[in-house]
Amino acid sequence: MRFVVVVKLKQGILDPQGKAIRKVIERRGEKRIKDIRVGKYFEIEVEGSNRKETQKTVESISKDILSNPIIETVDIIQ
Amino acid sequence: MRFVVVVKLKQGILDPQGKAIRKVIERRGEKRIKDIRVGKYFEIEVEGSNRKETQKTVESISKDILSNPIIETVDIIQ
Repeated sequence: MRFVVVVKLKQGILDPQGKAIRKVIERRGEKRIKDIRVGKYFEIEVEGSNRKETQKTVESISKDILSNPIIETVDIIQ
Repeated sequence: MRFVVVVKLKQGILDPQGKAIRKVIERRGEKRIKDIRVGKYFEIEVEGSNRKETQKTVESISKDILSNPIIETVDIIQ
């Protein structure tokens, strides 16, 4: 079973990586970028036939290992 | 205008970061994860009213700055 997990910084948390990328783009002459925020994207293949139960496993992994719940949010897609 | 860009390693390209995460999860006792692949996720806010034209700007940034087209693919969402 395949899941996609997206980990993003919570709103209000500064994103220095995104800021740096925006500066690079600006220096290249593209001035229309107002904001870039960077997140992490995971494709996870899990053994299991029960979708609900497998999703719980993915949720627990996402919270415990893939993200820092203090500053990040997790979206599980599919 | 808001775009989401997902950059993933091409199929067949090894993903040592994903492999390392899988090992950590396995060591924690969760044996059902068959594969994890890690990508990059960007939320980009662009000034512009013409969606098609703005999307072209985002495509060019994605190919030139956000990804390495030799080993990565780019998906632009929304």
